[in-house]
Amino acid sequence: MRTKPPPSLLSLTIDSAVLNLSDISDLSSIPDHILLDLFLRILRAGKLTEKVLRLFIATGKDEVISLVEALNIRHVLTPVLPTIQGVLKNSEMSQAVINDNEVDIVIGALHADLTTFMNEWKPIFSRFHLIIVKDPDLKEELQIPEGFRADVYSKADIERVVGSSSSIRFSGYSCRYFGFLISRKKYVVCIDDDCVPAKDNAGYLVDAVAQHVSNLQTPATPFFFNTLYDPFRKGADFVRGYPFSLREGVNCAVSCGLWLNMADLDAPTQALKPRQKNVRYVDAVLTVPARALLPMSGINVAFNREAIGPAIGPALRLTGEGKLRWETVEDIWCGMCVKVICDHLGLGVKTGLPYVWRTERGDAVQSLKKEWEGVKLMEDVVPFFQSLKLPQSATTAEVCMVEIAKAVKEQLGKAHPVFSQAAETMVEWVKLWKTVASG
Amino acid sequence: MRTKPPPSLLSLTIDSAVLNLSDISDLSSIPDHILLDLFLRILRAGKLTEKVLRLFIATGKDEVISLVEALNIRHVLTPVLPTIQGVLKNSEMSQAVINDNEVDIVIGALHADLTTFMNEWKPIFSRFHLIIVKDPDLKEELQIPEGFRADVYSKADIERVVGSSSSIRFSGYSCRYFGFLISRKKYVVCIDDDCVPAKDNAGYLVDAVAQHVSNLQTPATPFFFNTLYDPFRKGADFVRGYPFSLREGVNCAVSCGLWLNMADLDAPTQALKPRQKNVRYVDAVLTVPARALLPMSGINVAFNREAIGPAIGPALRLTGEGKLRWETVEDIWCGMCVKVICDHLGLGVKTGLPYVWRTERGDAVQSLKKEWEGVKLMEDVVPFFQSLKLPQSATTAEVCMVEIAKAVKEQLGKAHPVFSQAAETMVEWVKLWKTVASG
Repeated sequence: MRTKPPPSLLSLTIDSAVLNLSDISDLSSIPDHILLDLFLRILRAGKLTEKVLRLFIATGKDEVISLVEALNIRHVLTPVLPTIQGVLKNSEMSQAVINDNEVDIVIGALHADLTTFMNEWKPIFSRFHLIIVKDPDLKEELQIPEGFRADVYSKADIERVVGSSSSIRFSGYSCRYFGFLISRKKYVVCIDDDCVPAKDNAGYLVDAVAQHVSNLQTPATPFFFNTLYDPFRKGADFVRGYPFSLREGVNCAVSCGLWLNMADLDAPTQALKPRQKNVRYVDAVLTVPARALLPMSGINVAFNREAIGPAIGPALRLTGEGKLRWETVEDIWCGMCVKVICDHLGLGVKTGLPYVWRTERGDAVQSLKKEWEGVKLMEDVVPFFQSLKLPQSATTAEVCMVEIAKAVKEQLGKAHPVFSQAAETMVEWVKLWKTVASG
Repeated sequence: MRTKPPPSLLSLTIDSAVLNLSDISDLSSIPDHILLDLFLRILRAGKLTEKVLRLFIATGKDEVISLVEALNIRHVLTPVLPTIQGVLKNSEMSQAVINDNEVDIVIGALHADLTTFMNEWKPIFSRFHLIIVKDPDLKEELQIPEGFRADVYSKADIERVVGSSSSIRFSGYSCRYFGFLISRKKYVVCIDDDCVPAKDNAGYLVDAVAQHVSNLQTPATPFFFNTLYDPFRKGADFVRGYPFSLREGVNCAVSCGLWLNMADLDAPTQALKPRQKNVRYVDAVLTVPARALLPMSGINVAFNREAIGPAIGPALRLTGEGKLRWETVEDIWCGMCVKVICDHLGLGVKTGLPYVWRTERGDAVQSLKKEWEGVKLMEDVVPFFQSLKLPQSATTAEVCMVEIAKAVKEQLGKAHPVFSQAAETMVEWVKLWKTVASG
């Protein structure tokens, strides 16, 4: 057995100095080679205050000043530890403190019987406020079990708020947008009603809401890729070569979750591989780099409504769209808009955890026979968004949406009538947002 | 117990048709609603030949033609199944067939006793040819166990090949570049001599070489982010919304692996968190999107030497650089060059699996006292590479490297003398590559 060597006299002296920091008013007598050790020991002990920092900087030693710069330690008005990403994040930031009053769960009810869905989610959802929006096409009465703080909105409620003259269609999966509109919370989490909580690799139930909120509360890093994924997760960090000036990150506006069991495939892929299931639980969250587009799925998503709310709205709607995810591209279009806007406004989009367990529904071969439009439209949609540049004058999500609508009308309008329709819906949505959501 | 319902007559008829495909010469009599089912059944059975494809296209049915287009099925000269990414990949591509003669393992020996290192890697390395380059600064004789096909290169060999007039320094970690230069193989895998094989979440030994080669042999997808990570892995796929026209992907030129136990941190981070270990095995490979930079680590990396060889060379060398990874930025600089070049040439860079187990070595606090240059230089290096545009005329890795060297000299040369030196080394490296590697 290896026994630990006894501490050196120097080490004991430094420990003692850390303990008696308040008595030290001058560091000039401390030899250079001890100074850095002492500074690191203080940092690790979480004892760096404004006063102590001033003492170290007063030594004028290059090594210390470089370390202060590299770790992005700054003077602030209140005594404080080094920046979150430098020292504190592992112990604090990763365990996001969730304020129940800052979160709305929005559920678009495409099926009348929500009993199983709600009961499965009970351990996770019951502490939050729920906004359940009933698909206006759904005739039956909703069945919602007891034990939730839920507000339910039906066709009549939508019409009362939106008005009857609106051309925005909140039917099918788009009914969730009404929930986003009437929410008054900072964070919105939205999960399709054919999903139940997933389990992680260790067999534990995944708290999708906590993970989404943690993703949104910790910074995103879109300007440089970190090979160990989200540096703000417990146990992770920025790797060698990651510029210190970019380690502060930016606010995260969108958190895209994933799916176990039934993956979110398009109808042709699903039809071809009816038995393929997604079984790989990838234990990672990452920021999608700036200028890279992703297919944001509406199945399991969360966003900072205050930061980006109006950018998450209805727009593209296929003519033959049904009540199956693989028949829609509304969320994919929405994701293109929101990613371009986040890149423009300097906000982040994360993807990865949390997973949800997605159950089987529908027949992809039947969808194939019915609907091909969505897959084909993507060939125009992606190059459009890849080359889209928003004007510097667009500094809010609202203005960005109107600018995108303008560009859609000009550049895509001739390709297919659904694009002109999408542009009009976007403009109308922004108007509605200004009236309802800011009201 | 649920019993499967008996097959329908229609289903049996289609099955029979699939079995007797060769007898069918005309599909015009088949009702529309059966045609698509039959086509899908043929695809799944892997029986789509050129002749059968022609039969289906001859029907002129929109549904079938759309499916052919969407799945990117093309006429080719030899009878063939639909494109790899459409159907075949899950059964074939993911299990990369590795030709031993296409792979060189390059080891930079910074330590004389390679016994443990080599023995640990024996199950994985022994079938491949090894190029072991001894750090020219290392005085002791190398100790290499039996059972390998290894060529060992020492200072004298380097001088004989490179010449004595060369200013390129192949010492320290840079000795591995000499191995890249003299390799004649398509793929090069390079792993630091303080790493041993890692185990995956199930406790199985990770075959890092097989994973690297699989990453390099399957396409990369830099132009659109796939939320289920590498779509070419077994069980994975392209998600809904991923444009079909981009599913073919591009050639992958670089595979960056990761590290368990000791992560690849810089000296300040390591000094601050001496006890932090990377314990999260993230079971994913992903393409780093085009125009996003990453800190490519030299610890565990592989590349397609034919595609990008000259772009992986020595350049930036810190004046106080030692024999510890956290004291170097040579690989980080190299990674910036190669990513910019891959983006320019339409090649892909992947990161993620395989992991290696990295053992402890050195004292980060001592490195902190000695060397700060690297961390500071990144603040100039990253913006430079982020804004770098290579001319359209640069169509090879060699020409791209010379163009980057030119820009480095012009734009960074004044900031610090190491940059001018890096630019000169890059030009000299390309010359050397042309003489030696293409010789």
